[in-house]
Amino acid sequence: MTETTDGDVTIAVSTVIFALRSDGEGSAASLRLPLVRRIRAPFDGRWALPGGPIEATESLVAAAGRNLRETTALEPNYLEQLYAFGDADRSPYERVVSIVYWALVRSEQADLAEGKNVRWFAADELPELAFDHNLIVEYALWRLRTKMEYSRIAHAFLGETFTLAELREVHEAVLRRPLDPANFRRQIEASKAIIATEQHLTGGRHRPPRLYRYNTSVELTDNGPLGRS
Amino acid sequence: MTETTDGDVTIAVSTVIFALRSDGEGSAASLRLPLVRRIRAPFDGRWALPGGPIEATESLVAAAGRNLRETTALEPNYLEQLYAFGDADRSPYERVVSIVYWALVRSEQADLAEGKNVRWFAADELPELAFDHNLIVEYALWRLRTKMEYSRIAHAFLGETFTLAELREVHEAVLRRPLDPANFRRQIEASKAIIATEQHLTGGRHRPPRLYRYNTSVELTDNGPLGRS
Repeated sequence: MTETTDGDVTIAVSTVIFALRSDGEGSAASLRLPLVRRIRAPFDGRWALPGGPIEATESLVAAAGRNLRETTALEPNYLEQLYAFGDADRSPYERVVSIVYWALVRSEQADLAEGKNVRWFAADELPELAFDHNLIVEYALWRLRTKMEYSRIAHAFLGETFTLAELREVHEAVLRRPLDPANFRRQIEASKAIIATEQHLTGGRHRPPRLYRYNTSVELTDNGPLGRS
Repeated sequence: MTETTDGDVTIAVSTVIFALRSDGEGSAASLRLPLVRRIRAPFDGRWALPGGPIEATESLVAAAGRNLRETTALEPNYLEQLYAFGDADRSPYERVVSIVYWALVRSEQADLAEGKNVRWFAADELPELAFDHNLIVEYALWRLRTKMEYSRIAHAFLGETFTLAELREVHEAVLRRPLDPANFRRQIEASKAIIATEQHLTGGRHRPPRLYRYNTSVELTDNGPLGRS
């Protein structure tokens, strides 16, 4: 095909899925994402974001959720539209506009996502991906890190209750820098984002740390008039 | 057509264009946007956002810019992707995914945009529009007001230099609430977003107010790895 007309634009939905996972026994958790190996041209053999066409009657967010389940068996805790990528030359044979979503999943869920052509990669050390997917991941990482600073998004990586140390470790892994425990405690307590519970972490310690939960009176995702996605 | 398959999805680009305009002599400026009257089905005769298909070789943002020029003769000071709207039932005869951009223009530019089928409406008092365009405008308003609180976006409504009163009036018109002049001055000066110039507003006053300019060492639009749009 040498020329594209209006009607030839194809639309696809892709999803960037982040989880905090350890590389192996004993290593610290880092931000990782699952990619799918392509088994046809273009970019045959390259790794790519999970994605595909939209069905006739499903919404864009439903397509992203279905896609995610089909390729990784994951159910996201957080799923939000990231951006529409539509440069004319991003796919070699046809004009494709990709509506990209991003998702956050908890590490114990992430352990279930091990398909034949699925592999987890460190988000900051990717090989050369198919299409413009390196740029898409880079943008998703920037959005995650920006959002981490002013919203309650870390919740999506944690269970219902968590210690302050666990919450700080999520922030440290995403932002890739150590945070001072005392400062972190002061800031997070001042933000009213979390609420102390009466429970403590079980175990044989002398002073088991207190468990916290997120303040659910604030929406996790504030999409304004679009509601929760 | 009773059934849509993957290949039948049509893609369009639409733009929400905001300006601060006065309704007539003496009235205060309020947030207004230009709409285009539809002259064919569906929604024949209804008002709609300017928009249309993308050309074979143009990027999405280029399509939004072209579209804006063609329908309103405006050049935006700010043009950013808002969201992709793609629910299955948003258009009655075909499946259309609309990539929506939003733009801010200065009032003196807005005065130039008066086409035959173009009319300016108060952003908060719209008639029933075509498609889901009421929801789209509502979301764009929410994004503008949210962004106003933490970014330098008011700049796009102002000239190169402006008084603190002019800047406060922009914030008041967008947020639709009066702001205390002394508090506003303290907050804006503390934010380092603006820089005092040596010029003052000309006119016959005893103490002409000082002119300020935005601190251009900070990017107006921070899109991270996507660069300025």
